[in-house]
Formats: sequence, structure tokens, C-alpha cells
Amino acid sequence: MNIGIIGYGYWGPNLVRNFSVTKDCSVKMVCDQRTERLNVVQKLYPSINVTQNKDELISNKDIDAVVIATPVSTHFPLAKQALLEKKHVLLEKPMTDSVKHAEELIDIANKNNLLLMVDHTFLYTGAIQKMKDLIFDGSIGNINYFDSTRINLGLFQSDINVIWDLATHDISILYHLIKEKPYSVQAIGISHTDNKIENIAYLTVHYSSKIIAHFNVSWASPVKIRQMLIGGDKKMIVFNDMEESEKVKIYDTGYEIKTDEDRRKILVDYRVGDVFVPKIDRKEALAGMASDFVKGILEKKEPISNWELGLDVVKVLEAAEESIKNKGKEIIL
Amino acid sequence: MNIGIIGYGYWGPNLVRNFSVTKDCSVKMVCDQRTERLNVVQKLYPSINVTQNKDELISNKDIDAVVIATPVSTHFPLAKQALLEKKHVLLEKPMTDSVKHAEELIDIANKNNLLLMVDHTFLYTGAIQKMKDLIFDGSIGNINYFDSTRINLGLFQSDINVIWDLATHDISILYHLIKEKPYSVQAIGISHTDNKIENIAYLTVHYSSKIIAHFNVSWASPVKIRQMLIGGDKKMIVFNDMEESEKVKIYDTGYEIKTDEDRRKILVDYRVGDVFVPKIDRKEALAGMASDFVKGILEKKEPISNWELGLDVVKVLEAAEESIKNKGKEIIL
Amino acid sequence: MNIGIIGYGYWGPNLVRNFSVTKDCSVKMVCDQRTERLNVVQKLYPSINVTQNKDELISNKDIDAVVIATPVSTHFPLAKQALLEKKHVLLEKPMTDSVKHAEELIDIANKNNLLLMVDHTFLYTGAIQKMKDLIFDGSIGNINYFDSTRINLGLFQSDINVIWDLATHDISILYHLIKEKPYSVQAIGISHTDNKIENIAYLTVHYSSKIIAHFNVSWASPVKIRQMLIGGDKKMIVFNDMEESEKVKIYDTGYEIKTDEDRRKILVDYRVGDVFVPKIDRKEALAGMASDFVKGILEKKEPISNWELGLDVVKVLEAAEESIKNKGKEIIL
Amino acid sequence: MNIGIIGYGYWGPNLVRNFSVTKDCSVKMVCDQRTERLNVVQKLYPSINVTQNKDELISNKDIDAVVIATPVSTHFPLAKQALLEKKHVLLEKPMTDSVKHAEELIDIANKNNLLLMVDHTFLYTGAIQKMKDLIFDGSIGNINYFDSTRINLGLFQSDINVIWDLATHDISILYHLIKEKPYSVQAIGISHTDNKIENIAYLTVHYSSKIIAHFNVSWASPVKIRQMLIGGDKKMIVFNDMEESEKVKIYDTGYEIKTDEDRRKILVDYRVGDVFVPKIDRKEALAGMASDFVKGILEKKEPISNWELGLDVVKVLEAAEESIKNKGKEIIL
Repeated sequence: MNIGIIGYGYWGPNLVRNFSVTKDCSVKMVCDQRTERLNVVQKLYPSINVTQNKDELISNKDIDAVVIATPVSTHFPLAKQALLEKKHVLLEKPMTDSVKHAEELIDIANKNNLLLMVDHTFLYTGAIQKMKDLIFDGSIGNINYFDSTRINLGLFQSDINVIWDLATHDISILYHLIKEKPYSVQAIGISHTDNKIENIAYLTVHYSSKIIAHFNVSWASPVKIRQMLIGGDKKMIVFNDMEESEKVKIYDTGYEIKTDEDRRKILVDYRVGDVFVPKIDRKEALAGMASDFVKGILEKKEPISNWELGLDVVKVLEAAEESIKNKGKEIIL
Repeated sequence: MNIGIIGYGYWGPNLVRNFSVTKDCSVKMVCDQRTERLNVVQKLYPSINVTQNKDELISNKDIDAVVIATPVSTHFPLAKQALLEKKHVLLEKPMTDSVKHAEELIDIANKNNLLLMVDHTFLYTGAIQKMKDLIFDGSIGNINYFDSTRINLGLFQSDINVIWDLATHDISILYHLIKEKPYSVQAIGISHTDNKIENIAYLTVHYSSKIIAHFNVSWASPVKIRQMLIGGDKKMIVFNDMEESEKVKIYDTGYEIKTDEDRRKILVDYRVGDVFVPKIDRKEALAGMASDFVKGILEKKEPISNWELGLDVVKVLEAAEESIKNKGKEIIL
Repeated sequence: MNIGIIGYGYWGPNLVRNFSVTKDCSVKMVCDQRTERLNVVQKLYPSINVTQNKDELISNKDIDAVVIATPVSTHFPLAKQALLEKKHVLLEKPMTDSVKHAEELIDIANKNNLLLMVDHTFLYTGAIQKMKDLIFDGSIGNINYFDSTRINLGLFQSDINVIWDLATHDISILYHLIKEKPYSVQAIGISHTDNKIENIAYLTVHYSSKIIAHFNVSWASPVKIRQMLIGGDKKMIVFNDMEESEKVKIYDTGYEIKTDEDRRKILVDYRVGDVFVPKIDRKEALAGMASDFVKGILEKKEPISNWELGLDVVKVLEAAEESIKNKGKEIIL
Repeated sequence: MNIGIIGYGYWGPNLVRNFSVTKDCSVKMVCDQRTERLNVVQKLYPSINVTQNKDELISNKDIDAVVIATPVSTHFPLAKQALLEKKHVLLEKPMTDSVKHAEELIDIANKNNLLLMVDHTFLYTGAIQKMKDLIFDGSIGNINYFDSTRINLGLFQSDINVIWDLATHDISILYHLIKEKPYSVQAIGISHTDNKIENIAYLTVHYSSKIIAHFNVSWASPVKIRQMLIGGDKKMIVFNDMEESEKVKIYDTGYEIKTDEDRRKILVDYRVGDVFVPKIDRKEALAGMASDFVKGILEKKEPISNWELGLDVVKVLEAAEESIKNKGKEIIL
């Protein structure tokens, strides 16, 4: 099975490197508008064809699947063209720049029985997989909250704001880890640049149950923080992605509420107990994503990061943007 | 000058210990309803009188000033009684449980020319004083944001929510460090207990300028985090109060926005540079607060943590509570 | 039971504070040559008598036990005088400045049926007690090594070198945790001051078995490090005393040696697995030491930090000093 | 200029990847005895020839330089054969398994005017280069000590002990950072395996001046520590290679010794002051090493990691092994 990859910028090289060593597939062609980027491809992979013309890649008869690693705004037209050429499509996250576009792509893919998948790489990390196991086997208990901080001194994007850029990761993880679907979204953001694109934003996701999720994203932090807290009524998880050897910690710190008659006081019986740091599988996440895409095509296996999840993420992103424009108004999903 | 202290629970012992060694004053009497607490006082300080009767302390002719370290709901009646007895008053934070109560106390204190002060201890720490110097001497530049996280597995209060309990610290620091007065407040909170008192809350404070302040407070975090990020257009500060030796770090990580004609792209010229970790004065903050109170009375010196700041804090807390009740509605201050 | 404390310098205040609240005993008198230090005692503890004359304290008929917190060189004469006055004695660590002196004190104490104890406070910390439990219940397996680093920018002592000052702690812990007695000692040290007292030293303790213990101590490190690694053939312990909430970590990182015929290679089957961070009791260690001393006298209970351990520590310290003088020569204990 | 690389095990892939993109050279052939390793090369680099026969590579007329990344024991025969075939040679560290072998290679290289270089990659890291600048420009002052800890749960080698495996890095850094040549070496080691190869060792290097260097290396530590302390009389450096963003910290923590007549006390005037964390160049060290090798051949530029340094390192390693065999006896270099 032959793959063509469009876009050899920041993420493209990782995709080429991983698909090059993925079982049952090979990278046939890479497309990028910048000749200097194509020269890099040729020096590293003399056997891969290169082109500046996307049509040459998309319409290539030997190519079975197209991987799109370009700016979000171009995802829709490129993916649509590829699907109409009967190619399977893998899109970089976020899937598209609007729900409408995502739904149109899904419709075409389904009609033509093609695989449409989104590269939410995080879902393939050992850390997230371990956290999913712990949550789904009941170890954590009922989830009370999800609190994520993803801040750093980032490249200010000119086409999307910090929520579309950074929160996308955390929202995909939220949908992956929590079965219940969110009820509504509220967001506040601010732009410190003259193009009015938010570089700092705070997103809150509400559930019909007692779960609350909060996301703190910023391109303007001097320190890089990648932290996620998940609180259950049995145990709590702290995921610190900046930690080399102890990314996931499980805290036996539940508390029990006992109330006496006069309701004057709540006694909290602390069980601040031991901490458990499970061993995390270190395999490269992107390799798992690549093989999931290939198996999705060759074995018709439902991928983990499927289009339903990709669409859910875009729905939250779109709602967040609307809420920001309305000063934090609650937007029902 | 003689001091009487009401309340010997969690904070009271620290107050007694510090006022005992403060120049020009001595602790005359301690009041607490629990005999076992009074026994501890007598074993440690045989020279201090103890009583279970607040009136005995407040009306004591030898006592010049009353320090009140009791639950927030009792601050107003106790302080009012003491002021009417012509005693100077030091209140634990937050000042009162409502703006109305705070303003009534201020009015009585002014009429009687008495010192009314609030113990916002943080303002007397070496770390905050260093940060204030750096901000006020212009090293940081114009402030863009203030982002605070104060979470831990805390004692669930039965009378006040997590904002009144924890955010109080950060709001006092915000007012201390930033000259501009906030414009409005938005807050979201959730309660996981059956008494409906929020144990997790997210507070956003808006300014007329481009400053935004955000506070993440929780009683339900397995890890204790005390972190504050302050972003200026010249430098950024990270204050990590859990750090023993490097509480305050100054990052030379400003960025300059350059825009080209077609507006297609913003180039961010990173100056992610050196980090500077200033030496912080390690003296006990509470000792500074105690002496500030004594000097405020004996030398008529305006204290750092004065009633104006105490009132400002209560205004934000009250507005936050109203916003939570209205699903994050913006409340103008 | 009445206690007299000699020396109110760095450690004395902690001893007074803890013995003041210890059951079945009270602090009767404090002795120090510096009047300004005695003034502090009187301000904090008006009920405690103070004196600059050690004889007044030691010969005081109401005093049952003498606690000695003075420079090491004065331990022997003061303790000897107190024992001859039939007082029980608690000595700060290290017990004495020589094995000969320690043995003479032990002899007098035994003859007079008095308790002679050394304040190796660390043995009473929750962390060391947890580590001892884990080692003695077999969880760690057979110990292979003990590796300690205790370095900081310390006060250069004028009477003892860095080994007597810092390694004393680690040697007492070593004897407390490992049943087997050491076989020999090697040490290397260097002095960067003109008084020839070593400020950096490296100590190695050998055992007849395969255990090796190494101690890195320094007064000249810019960072404060308090770290201990204990390697067993089942599990390994890392004790980081600078860590607030995770002082003790248990690593499931054993390895099994499998050898094939031609002996050309050793295959190491890594079991680098989970990490376990047990909850540590946070009670103040010094309180446990104080009550252990009092119980040792009133209930004839053998204290944890007894004179045998105190003597063993001095033997290693003396041997280390001899080895340093002989360029690291092995000294048999 | 064409390069042939022998050994495609742990380090080989990094060498191939870096030399593939180094200016003015290309990788012509890779040799490894394992066909599965050669298959990996062909999948990633179809244009590189592969062989299982070292002679085919070494005698290849198109190849100008041979890079040897095989076990230490094979360095000498392979390098000698290559040099006699008039090829320039780059050896993985350590240079050879004995001083005698190293000197013979140097002799052949000089006679044939060929470049002989050793890959001490660390010397090309931004961190070490920053530290060298700070030391050589006098900022640190006169060096008092060098203290290194390099421990982890490592692959037990069957041909060399832990000093040859791990301390090699630190010794090369020591020679790179300190101009003065060491005077003598002492080492203690222990083996917990039945092949008698030390898996834990402590190495001390003495200087004629007051400098002392100590190295703690272990294959049996549950945690990975890569830490280096360098103490000068002006400032001190802490290099923590496990730190992502703050690898090098400069402490303004000098101390001045003032002595009074009676010599009873040394007063240490602490200047425990600010900490400075310089920005470190993040470029890949191996790329710098590769280009240094190529420039060494094409431009006759003296490489940083030259054979003199490679030889010095082997001298210390050999002396350390002799000292271990003699229970820590001092070996004069």
C-alpha cells in the first residue's frame, strides 16, 4: 500500500519517518511548495518521489492514501479532493476549521467507503493508554473533574487561536478518557497582538453529571507546562508530560463526606495515602497512529482516533470560539 | 502596648508566637472556647492570661489591640465590638463575609481614629516583596497577564467556598502588585459535596487595559500547587511557592511582533534567553506583619496590608460568588 | 522528672521546645555562657530558670537528667561530670570526640545504672522508620549498596571536619538500617582552608559480605543535597530528604543475572517496573527522641538511639580520620 | 569525501544519521555482522551500501575515512587496519582498551599523516561549551573541586567495567574544562555479578594544586542521575543533564575565610546570592562532532576531541583499574 504525504513542515518529517518503517506500506511521494524542504526529503530518502504540485500527488494512480499535514484552513479542500479521487485520508489535528467542513468530508468518505482518520497522536501514547485503562477498569472511581494546563512560549499562529492550536490535544484526550458526552462549553480569551487572535484562553466544559473540565492554554508562558489532573472519588491521576520517568502518578487521596444532624460542619476524612507510579510503555506514539491508519485500511479495523472523535473535537473548538466572542456565554453542544 | 488574641485554632498559635517576640508589645490574653486549646497556651506561655469569654478580653482595660483569628462569619461582630471598645483591630483574612460589613467596620474605625488592618500575610513575604520591586521598577514591563494556581487536598470548609478560602491570598497579591484596578469579574465553580459549597472554582478578573488575571483554586487536588505566572512585555515572572530555594524566577522571554503587508503571518522573534533567580529574604512574613500592625498603632505608619486592600479583596470575592450563581456572568466591580 | 539543658545555640532551642511538651517531664533549667541567649529563653519560657554556670545546673538536686547540646569537644567533660553527679545524660551527636572518651562515659553510666543516650534524631523520622520496616520485612531483599550524598554550603566548623559534622547522620542511619557490622573504612578528604580541616570528603565503608557503603559529604556545595540510595536484590530505595511530599520511593528495578556457557556475555533481564511512594508519618522526629529518652529513664525502655550505636558511629568517624591522614588507607574496624 | 561506518548497534544509527547530513561528506558503506541490522540501514537509506565483511569496507578505495562504533576491545585491531589502509579514523569512546594500544595507533596515524579522532560527544554539547566559556573567562575563579555522579540502571557490560563505560564521559569533560593535568588516581569498586566486573565504582582524581575530582558511577541505581558540580572560589556551577530547560546553573555562593588570632573559629561570610541560568545552545552535539571530524580532514583543523584527549582519558581509566585491583592505592599518572 502506497502513501502520499502533503506538507513537509514541522510535523511532516515525523510522519514520513514513521510511515517509512510501518508494516505493509511505503511512502511513495511527498509534496511541499518549498523546494528546500523537498531537497531535505531527497537527501534523507532518495527513493521517495517529491513534487511541488499537490494534484500530481493526489491524482497519482499508485497512491492509495493521502496524509495531509498542512495548515488547518487547507485541510478541507485537500481532503475533499483526495476523497473524490478515492484515496483514504489521514488529517493532522484539528480535523477541519469548521463542523460543516468536517461533516461534508465524513459524508463523502462514507459514501465512497473510504477511511477518514484524524491524527490525534496523544491517544497513542503509553501514558494516555495507561490512564484510560485505570479509568475504564474503575480504579479511579467516578470522575469529578478534569483540569488541564498546556502553556508555553509558543509560535503565535496567524490563522488559528491558542485554543485551536493547543486545547485540541486536551479535548481529544478528554473525549478519549471520559465516556459521558459534554453538555456545554464556556470560554474566555484575550489577544495581546494586533491581529486579534487569542494567545491566552481559559476553556470550561460542563457535563450533565458532576464532572467539570477546565483547560488553561497559552502561547505566552515562559515555562512549558503540560499537566493534567483527573479527580475521581476513589483515586486521582496527575499526568505531567514534562516528566521523563514519572509521567503518570496515581494518588490514593480520596475523601469521604460524613454529615452530622445540625449540618453545621462537614467532616472530611482524609485518606491522603500512598502514591503509585506505574511503568509507562515508551514506544513512539506516532508509530502506533501510523499502523492504526494502515490497519484501518487493510484490515477494516476501527481506528482509535476515528472521525467521530475528530468531529467531536471540532464541535468543542467551534463552540469555544463562539463563547469567547460572547464574553464566556455558555454554548450548548 | 498589650495585645489580646481571639481564636487559638490553626493560625492563632503563629500569631501568639510572633507577637510574643515583636518589639514594643506583649501578648496579654488569649481567648478560645476550647479549654484544651487554652491549656496548650498555658503550658507554652505561663505568663499569658487565658479566657473562654471573649467579652472579658475585649473589655479588658489593659488591652490596646485585639487580634481576631476566628471563622470569617464571626469577624464582623467581634471586630465591631472591639472597635466600639476603642481597641485597634487586626483581622485574619478575608476581612469580613461581605462588603457591607467591611464598610461598616471601616466607618467605625475611622470615626474613632483606630487602626483597622487585615492580615494578608503573603504581602510580607520576601518573594512577593521582590516581585513588587521588579514590577514597580519597570523590569517586567507592561503586565499582560497574571495566572495563579492554588490547589491542594484541603479541608472542606462548611461556611465559605474555595474562592473565599484560597483565592483570597492571590487576590490580595494581585492588588498589591498591579496598580490598575480591575474592571470586572467572572467565575465558575462546582460543588462535589451535598452542602453546595464550591470546592473547585475558576476566577477571571478583567481590566480595562489588556491585563487578564485568572485563578484556579481547588480543595480536591491530590498535589499541592502554589504557582503564579506574571507576564510582562519585557520579562516574565514565575513564582513557585513550593520551591524551597528558587521561589521566584525571572525569564527573559519577551517576544516582538513584526507584521508584513499581506498580514498572512505574524513573525514572533523569540528572545527565549537567560533565567535569573534572585536571592529572596527568608525572614518570617508573619513577623513583618505583626511589627507593621504595632508600628501602625504606635507610629501612625500606614500598614502595607491596610483596610483599603482588605476591602478590595472582599469586593472581588463577593462579585465572584454572584458570578458563580449566574453561570459565569460578568460582574462589574 | 526535671531536665536541665546545657547549650542554647543552634540545636538547643529545638530541644527546649520539644522537652517542654514531652509527657512526664519538664525543663527546669537552661545553661549558656551568652546572656543574650538566656534572655531569649526567659522571654519565651518565663518559668524556666537560666544560668551561665554549668556547675549550678549539673549539681542541681532537682534535676534528674542533663541534656548536652554543646560543641563536640566539650561533650566528654560535661557528660562525665553529670554522670558522676548521678544524672542521666543525653548527648548531641556525635557522642564524643574519640572512642576512648565514649567508652569511659559508657563505663561510668553502667556502673551507676544511669541512662546514657545520643541524639541521632534521624532515627526517629518517619522516613527512616519506613525504610527500616521495608528492609527488615525483606521487601528490599539482600542489600548490595548504600550510597549517600549530604552536601551543602555549610558553616565551616573550626573544631571538627565535614565527616564529623555531616557523615555522622548517615553513619547512624547505616547502622540503624543494616544489621551486619562493617568490616573496614577508607576515606579521602581535602581542605580548602588554612586550618587544614577537611571541608570535602569521600568515605567508603566495606563489609565482609557484598555490601558497599559510600558517603559524599561537603560544606562547599552551592546546592543542598540530602540523598540516599539503598540497593537490594529485590527492590531499591531512594530517600530524598529535600522532597516535601515524596521523600521515600521504592523502585521495582531488580535485575537477574543469567550466564550462558561461553561466559562471553551477561544478559541482564531488566525489570524496571513500577514505583511506589509510601505515605510517611510527618510527626516531628525530635519529639520522638525526647520521649524515647524520658521513657528510657522512667520505664527502663531501651532507646532506639542507644549508646552502642553512638559508640559505633564514633568508631567509624575515628577510623575515617585516620584513613584520611594515610591517603585512603583501609582501616579495619 | 566518503565515509564508511563499522558497527550499527546502539550508537551507529546516530552516526549514520548525522554524517548523512554533514556538509562535504556522504556515507558510502555500513558494516555490521548482523543481517537484520543491515536490513534496517537499507530500508532507511537505500543509497548506502551494506556489508557483513569489514575488510570489504576498510579496503574500499572510494572510502576516505572509517568510523568505528564497535565494542572497545575491537577498536585497536580495526583502527590499526584502517590506518594502514591510509584511512582517516574516528573511534567511539573510549579510544582503546589500553594506553599501549592507543599510543601505537597515534604513532601510525602521525607517520601516515592521517587524522585520528575520538568521539567524546559531550565536548560538543552546548552545556559543556557554556561551562568551558565560564571557566576560561575567569567567571568561576580558581577551581576547588569537580564532583560528578553518573548512575543509572544500566546494561551490565561483559567486557568493560562501569568506569570504562560511564566515567569515560566525565573524565573527558574534566580534561576539557580544567587546564591543569591530574597528578594521581584512586579508585574503589565492587562487582555484584559473578564475572567480577565492577558495576559500582568511586574514582578520585588528585591534582598538585588544591583541586580534587570525584566520580560516582554505577549500573545499579534505580534512578538516572547525571549531575556535575564544579566549585570555584568565585562561583559554582551545577550541571544537571537530566534537566530539560535548566541544565547549567551558576551560583554566586563563594565564601571568604577570615581568621582571628586565637584560631578558635573560622568565620565564613556567606555570599549565598543570586542564581543565573544561562541559555544553552540546543544544537545536536553529534552533528558538531561529525563536522569537526570532516573539517579536521578537509581543512586540517585541529578537532576539539583530538587523540591527545582520547589518550589522556585512557590513561586515567587504566590507572583507575590498577587502583581498584590494589584496594584504592594511589596511582601516579
